[in-house]
Amino acid sequence: MKKIGVFTSGGDAPGMNACIRAVVRTAVYNGLEVYGIKRGYNGMIKGEITKMESSSVSNIIQKGGTILKSARSTEFRTKEGRQKAYEQLQKHGIEGLVAIGGDGTFTGANIFYEEFGIPTVGAPGTIDNDLYGTDYTIGYDTAVNTAIDAIDKIRDTADSHERVFFIEVMGRDSGYIAIPCAIGGGAEIVMIPEAITSIEAVVNALRAGYDRSKTSFIVIIAEGEVPGNANVVAAKVQEALPNMDARVTTLGHVQRGGSPSGADRMLASQLGIACVEGLLAGRKCEMAGIINSELVYTPFIDTITKDKLISPRLLQMVEVLSV
Amino acid sequence: MKKIGVFTSGGDAPGMNACIRAVVRTAVYNGLEVYGIKRGYNGMIKGEITKMESSSVSNIIQKGGTILKSARSTEFRTKEGRQKAYEQLQKHGIEGLVAIGGDGTFTGANIFYEEFGIPTVGAPGTIDNDLYGTDYTIGYDTAVNTAIDAIDKIRDTADSHERVFFIEVMGRDSGYIAIPCAIGGGAEIVMIPEAITSIEAVVNALRAGYDRSKTSFIVIIAEGEVPGNANVVAAKVQEALPNMDARVTTLGHVQRGGSPSGADRMLASQLGIACVEGLLAGRKCEMAGIINSELVYTPFIDTITKDKLISPRLLQMVEVLSV
Amino acid sequence: MKKIGVFTSGGDAPGMNACIRAVVRTAVYNGLEVYGIKRGYNGMIKGEITKMESSSVSNIIQKGGTILKSARSTEFRTKEGRQKAYEQLQKHGIEGLVAIGGDGTFTGANIFYEEFGIPTVGAPGTIDNDLYGTDYTIGYDTAVNTAIDAIDKIRDTADSHERVFFIEVMGRDSGYIAIPCAIGGGAEIVMIPEAITSIEAVVNALRAGYDRSKTSFIVIIAEGEVPGNANVVAAKVQEALPNMDARVTTLGHVQRGGSPSGADRMLASQLGIACVEGLLAGRKCEMAGIINSELVYTPFIDTITKDKLISPRLLQMVEVLSV
Amino acid sequence: MKKIGVFTSGGDAPGMNACIRAVVRTAVYNGLEVYGIKRGYNGMIKGEITKMESSSVSNIIQKGGTILKSARSTEFRTKEGRQKAYEQLQKHGIEGLVAIGGDGTFTGANIFYEEFGIPTVGAPGTIDNDLYGTDYTIGYDTAVNTAIDAIDKIRDTADSHERVFFIEVMGRDSGYIAIPCAIGGGAEIVMIPEAITSIEAVVNALRAGYDRSKTSFIVIIAEGEVPGNANVVAAKVQEALPNMDARVTTLGHVQRGGSPSGADRMLASQLGIACVEGLLAGRKCEMAGIINSELVYTPFIDTITKDKLISPRLLQMVEVLSV
Repeated sequence: MKKIGVFTSGGDAPGMNACIRAVVRTAVYNGLEVYGIKRGYNGMIKGEITKMESSSVSNIIQKGGTILKSARSTEFRTKEGRQKAYEQLQKHGIEGLVAIGGDGTFTGANIFYEEFGIPTVGAPGTIDNDLYGTDYTIGYDTAVNTAIDAIDKIRDTADSHERVFFIEVMGRDSGYIAIPCAIGGGAEIVMIPEAITSIEAVVNALRAGYDRSKTSFIVIIAEGEVPGNANVVAAKVQEALPNMDARVTTLGHVQRGGSPSGADRMLASQLGIACVEGLLAGRKCEMAGIINSELVYTPFIDTITKDKLISPRLLQMVEVLSV
Repeated sequence: MKKIGVFTSGGDAPGMNACIRAVVRTAVYNGLEVYGIKRGYNGMIKGEITKMESSSVSNIIQKGGTILKSARSTEFRTKEGRQKAYEQLQKHGIEGLVAIGGDGTFTGANIFYEEFGIPTVGAPGTIDNDLYGTDYTIGYDTAVNTAIDAIDKIRDTADSHERVFFIEVMGRDSGYIAIPCAIGGGAEIVMIPEAITSIEAVVNALRAGYDRSKTSFIVIIAEGEVPGNANVVAAKVQEALPNMDARVTTLGHVQRGGSPSGADRMLASQLGIACVEGLLAGRKCEMAGIINSELVYTPFIDTITKDKLISPRLLQMVEVLSV
Repeated sequence: MKKIGVFTSGGDAPGMNACIRAVVRTAVYNGLEVYGIKRGYNGMIKGEITKMESSSVSNIIQKGGTILKSARSTEFRTKEGRQKAYEQLQKHGIEGLVAIGGDGTFTGANIFYEEFGIPTVGAPGTIDNDLYGTDYTIGYDTAVNTAIDAIDKIRDTADSHERVFFIEVMGRDSGYIAIPCAIGGGAEIVMIPEAITSIEAVVNALRAGYDRSKTSFIVIIAEGEVPGNANVVAAKVQEALPNMDARVTTLGHVQRGGSPSGADRMLASQLGIACVEGLLAGRKCEMAGIINSELVYTPFIDTITKDKLISPRLLQMVEVLSV
Repeated sequence: MKKIGVFTSGGDAPGMNACIRAVVRTAVYNGLEVYGIKRGYNGMIKGEITKMESSSVSNIIQKGGTILKSARSTEFRTKEGRQKAYEQLQKHGIEGLVAIGGDGTFTGANIFYEEFGIPTVGAPGTIDNDLYGTDYTIGYDTAVNTAIDAIDKIRDTADSHERVFFIEVMGRDSGYIAIPCAIGGGAEIVMIPEAITSIEAVVNALRAGYDRSKTSFIVIIAEGEVPGNANVVAAKVQEALPNMDARVTTLGHVQRGGSPSGADRMLASQLGIACVEGLLAGRKCEMAGIINSELVYTPFIDTITKDKLISPRLLQMVEVLSV
């Protein structure tokens, strides 16, 4: 293998740039030519492909977002689209790919390999941490820190005005972001998709708190939580507790941005190196991850189909700590 | 005057604690006894009044919110309520008050003086910066920094995904927060209550940007802006630009919290000192403020009735800088 | 066991308050009485012991430092000192202890148990991450983030002025802080106690960088590094490279403070719970830690005598990534 | 005037990029061609001059440092150097300059105008805030916030260990940075060049604090303070107070970097616009500044020769607030 390409795809995550940097520098270190492909599969189809040097990735390790930009591609879901992408890679002599993204990205890479034989090794880039095959995904630690920082700010005003705040955090269908936000944010209640919390349970927890003379509360709600989003939950609880002074905040896209944390830079750097080394070792259709401090490669198919479970112990922690 | 009270009232703002600290220490420095009154006028009525020492305000200068808590009081709007408050003050021998809050707070203090002769000197504590009689209110600088930090994070993802973000910021009926957020956040468009921006103008500005090959945009919308909140604006613009990939974020209560900036700590400290010195000099029904780097006392009635205008030059800056 | 005590000892670390909070609330949750002991073993000797309630630890999870304060105690190293400490515990009926600290703390607890039979379970609280028996210590993640944030700021000016910065970070005799600072800070060179880097090697690396047209560099030096501190290293390198425009910064005690990161709050909360549960399960002279995502109790004697090694792979990463 | 150049010179400061952005976009808005000159006067001499477009300054408003880089130039101090610089400008048809820097920068621009008739309008870019002709310089507000954030972190550990911290902050020959750091950082003592504080006074203030049962202290020392730097001051105080547990931290170059605050982005944007508008209006050898919220142009000669005094009232505030 002499020439490889690298791209980011799916939702952006802090640390993607640190990973791109590691991919480029590891390629250069190993004597490979490396090409940056812009806008994910879309740019691959359109040939937005540029040679990168070591200096192309100077001073980006601290930047949020992705310098290669990201996009979701409907065209790559068609055979014609993938054919075009293949031709573009051929034109540049690119023999292998590093994909930084999530399960959608890896699904595409799997099909692409079957059809055209271009091997891809992937790095898990998503704030949601919902990918099987790694303890943490790139961007997760930063997103949690960003959310907790916001919750700290909200607690200032919650405490001053003795209010109940219903705060919605990101995480798609998973409570991975919500759990540390609740524990680290000192919340009284957390509602996540993996464990149904009834409105009644929320009301009871708040009542019990009021009985213990608590005057302000934080309720963390994962965006994919079943009974509805933060506004809906707050409205229902308000019905049962008409005297409650409630406010709702949806943290939103701030959680996707910002300078990556130290842990995310380390993880992104390690996995970027591992992706290139994996390609050189003949790997394909595998995602590099860290499990129990060890580098592990997991087949894309497993990262897509297997579930990553949240320890029930973590859920119980919220209850103990808000006593 | 031997004994004074201090309280915070209305919406909380970063720097209120720095101001309380300055009030307490200046009182101690001048040989006064100083009492903390909790929960604004409500706590005054209920007698939630405690003697404070210099050490009561140790290590609070950096804290968001207010250690004295804040509340809006309907009871203080009645003669009976104010009578009770007066009796509580009498009980503790409190002869003068320092009120940290906004126009509602000062309105109450005015009536209270007319009826019971207790003088109040006020400090402007509100993130909105919409009070006449001071260039800046306590909390404003911090709120702007917090909002800009959030906008920076959103720009990372806006840029990576080439999206248009409609971001709603606080500010009640004023664009004071929105303007520096737009200029400092590198926004393309700002919509504030003081200057009607039609949906058509927004659409045209975005179209012009797309024509200049811009691919991501930030639109800042003040919460009190006329055509509706960020969701409404985004929906209307989307109609005219169906290909636009838009997202909406309402920054919400994070803007009220957080550790105060250096400028807010300075301002809060200066005004806290000025309030106590004002009381000692026989002032009443006046707000301490800083205008053109000079300490100025303005009658409460002016801070309530007079408007503080935004320079039209600032609005024009957004246009020039987003060229 | 009905009554337990909790204290912090040794160098303070962000997350100690989150750990105290978890200890107190887990104790309350389990029907125990819990006492806060101030100033480590010193306060134990002097009887600075107060009953804590659930509300004693409200709103502290986000605070740096330790509300129980910390100190090193020479008196506790004497039999007489420990006798006095024992009598104070007896007076309050305290039957077990939770110690948040490092190896010095655990050494004392071991002796104390042998002499007086009071069991202690410990939580690793130190920014240095140099304790055997846990993947991460409480405060480490935050200290690394703080240092990297400072390095990011320095890189701005290094890059603008095309300078070489020699930055000294904390870490006692270990490179645990220095390594992620170097990788996450995008440094060109790292010098740690575990691997001798000669001045010649530094000079050669800088020369090679200049040859590749690099114009600014960051060299991270662990405080316990052998050839001397940052000032000494910089002076020696300057001799060999007289045209180098060099600056030295010693990050210092800022690395010990600040609001704990999400990961540190999680770790501190988990270990605080584990300490109380450990005591209840009859454990003594053991430290709670997390290894490979699992809760593990390690005898104090092992945490004191065994070394925790840095993976050589991490060192090599700096070389690859700075190519 | 059809073509202008822009450069940064002297010590870098946060907000310089926001100012460059404003200069470039205002030039484009007014139909001018605008050229970026790298590395200050050095790059002008060497012809490191590139045409800039509106997009050249996209996404830089939030970045610390300066994308045009900065340097001090000895060659420009010679007639030959300036001759070469003039020839380079001629080659590109550049008729006017915007200089972002400090008094050294403006001194050069003055001579350059006298000799070659190229007009320069300047923006005050320095963290030190020691320039006559503007209330605040670009970068000052950010540097103060950065220093206060560091002091907050140090206070956590000072308070936990009951120590005295001697913290040295930047500011060249002025106490402009030290004063708000002391007031905003809750320091007990501040030592600045403008007001001699004897070691005896420091010792007495600490003794008085100990007498009032204070256990931790922060002493802020401006780098240009007379009795010596922080290490010297700490050593002398230690002699008089042998039981004092003291630590020294020199904040150093972190104060120069980081993302600019909202206030600095506003100031930099306003002054960048004003520089271009000044050139278009025929101004030369003048610095744009903001005094009492009004835009003011001050002759370079005044900014170089006149002193900007610190209000003695600010010094007294430290005493009152640390009571």
